[in-house]
Amino acid sequence: MAIITIIGSGMMGSAMAFPACRNGNTVRLVGSPLDRAIIEHGQKTHEHLTLTHDVNGVKTCFMMPEKVTFHYYEELDECMKGADLLICGISSFGLDWFCENVVPRIPEELPVLSITKGMIDNGEGKGNLISYPEHMLKFTDKKLKINAVGGPCTSYELADLDPTEVTFCGPDMEQLRWIRSLFETDFYHVSLSTDIRGVECAVALKNAYALGVSLAIGLSYKREGRVFEHYNSQAALFGQAAKEMYRLLNLCDGNAEKNIFLGVGDLYVTVFGGRTRKIGTLLGEGKKFDEAMEILKGVTLESIVIARRTADAVIQMVEAGRAKAEDFPLLYHIRELLVDNADVNVPWSKFETETIR
Amino acid sequence: MAIITIIGSGMMGSAMAFPACRNGNTVRLVGSPLDRAIIEHGQKTHEHLTLTHDVNGVKTCFMMPEKVTFHYYEELDECMKGADLLICGISSFGLDWFCENVVPRIPEELPVLSITKGMIDNGEGKGNLISYPEHMLKFTDKKLKINAVGGPCTSYELADLDPTEVTFCGPDMEQLRWIRSLFETDFYHVSLSTDIRGVECAVALKNAYALGVSLAIGLSYKREGRVFEHYNSQAALFGQAAKEMYRLLNLCDGNAEKNIFLGVGDLYVTVFGGRTRKIGTLLGEGKKFDEAMEILKGVTLESIVIARRTADAVIQMVEAGRAKAEDFPLLYHIRELLVDNADVNVPWSKFETETIR
Repeated sequence: MAIITIIGSGMMGSAMAFPACRNGNTVRLVGSPLDRAIIEHGQKTHEHLTLTHDVNGVKTCFMMPEKVTFHYYEELDECMKGADLLICGISSFGLDWFCENVVPRIPEELPVLSITKGMIDNGEGKGNLISYPEHMLKFTDKKLKINAVGGPCTSYELADLDPTEVTFCGPDMEQLRWIRSLFETDFYHVSLSTDIRGVECAVALKNAYALGVSLAIGLSYKREGRVFEHYNSQAALFGQAAKEMYRLLNLCDGNAEKNIFLGVGDLYVTVFGGRTRKIGTLLGEGKKFDEAMEILKGVTLESIVIARRTADAVIQMVEAGRAKAEDFPLLYHIRELLVDNADVNVPWSKFETETIR
Repeated sequence: MAIITIIGSGMMGSAMAFPACRNGNTVRLVGSPLDRAIIEHGQKTHEHLTLTHDVNGVKTCFMMPEKVTFHYYEELDECMKGADLLICGISSFGLDWFCENVVPRIPEELPVLSITKGMIDNGEGKGNLISYPEHMLKFTDKKLKINAVGGPCTSYELADLDPTEVTFCGPDMEQLRWIRSLFETDFYHVSLSTDIRGVECAVALKNAYALGVSLAIGLSYKREGRVFEHYNSQAALFGQAAKEMYRLLNLCDGNAEKNIFLGVGDLYVTVFGGRTRKIGTLLGEGKKFDEAMEILKGVTLESIVIARRTADAVIQMVEAGRAKAEDFPLLYHIRELLVDNADVNVPWSKFETETIR
């Protein structure tokens, strides 16, 4: 039985306690400085304040597994002592904070598993994206082993024990197998890959593209004048999204042929289960980006950050002659929406191709 | 303006009249011998008896475009005279009938566009699948040009003018461009491909796999005891389905890298918009295949035919040493359900992989 310390007690980080504790491990859940209310509520009630599910129509907090203890951020160093694994459970918005404040303090022998999904510009201004684990390593001289989780998994469904299939990626297959042994259960299935770049790229991209697919939901609502979905248009955007993700994986050295399947699974779950759906739907209904963000005030929307970052990277790659703008019509339109506050006008005919066998 | 004759007045064949007539073409809709009620109703009311949509919660027959005329099967030869294009609008169940009764009568100079999607064993008993257009050509000595439509498109949403992106495939790019010019509208977007095998294979496979993805819907209903979906499990099955489809495309000489995106788009729309969802959900809820079919009596389920046919072909390919059974755990399970009346027991752990970069 292992001791697992989770830093960041948001929804996804906390949900990892469910498979971990099912396997008899102990979990120390440490809030970030922004998570004080979650820790306070957890210490009092053992419930999770923000990780909720629908119980017969009523939004209900999850009771956390018995072997979880709740800790304020000040106890982080104490909580890393004797731990076998550290989970980085922060969102993309906390990445800088994590890199500056936590990474330097992680003991060299403590393996890390990051649930934060994303890619970030490598800082050279050429549109080269690297994975978060690669980025994190820049903030320490220690030889940390930073693994990450990719693949479709929404937090509240994991806590609900819905069967889930994810991929752990990291530099060392032996270590990956050991980490899997801590989490693998009948509801949490784990593939392994040493292709960190490819896995992270695949799952990061879905954030941008889930917004793109969701535009069709809003367009349908608007045309119907009611909450009513059409799927032809969603499917057209889904297929185009998959195609552009495949191209981006190739551009990011992400082994497209292997990792696109992770990407489409993750895209699927994000269109249905994620917060990104809300913003895409509002944009599709005809709201400007500014208005939509005002309506969703207070909701964490990593997708926006990732979408902008990906689009910026692609533009830089196009400028450098490494990519063709016409290969990414959907991403360019998403960028127009987010950056230029443009109206939705899906470039359907730009998706058309002619293929000679 | 062209004259387009549609043979088979089921939902999908008939829906093609909407983009065709929007472009000013004339449509002669000819029922198969099974479609007499549709033709009778159409001649009386100009409504389509079975092509319906939801209008504020009420199931309502579509009014067909003005330039559609309705014809009984006996008028087929008359209706092909002077026509510029023949649409084959029958389902897979009518394929034998169409090949034996219609194909030999098609004038050599009349191009065909088939909306019937599928692959069929080439008859050599080695699991080699060929596309329907390839199969149809076996029933005539004439040099017919048989084109086909692939890509995500449900009939009632096309009739509803929801934006749709499809692919026309055929042997001659010039002819494909002309056919596109008859249908391309602001709601019907068309890519072109001379890769008939690849396009048809991609869109045929989704029938089998949409059933696989839908199992998760039923499993969720069952576990919750109510109509409530979880998406992690659907996404896991969706990703696995895409992976197996990619492998099958390669085995069928189907240019996986180009056509998988058609396949995933079509899979998406079929999970949401199709009849296949119903049977998958019932199986997931714990019904045996026999019971599920009894419940759905009277519903046309091409997916079952295609799923069995695909699984049979894969088994033959495995026996011939051309494919590995462990590459298709989901398809094998679908086959167990359909052929052996087995209980649902999704082989989640067989989906797990280890990838060394």
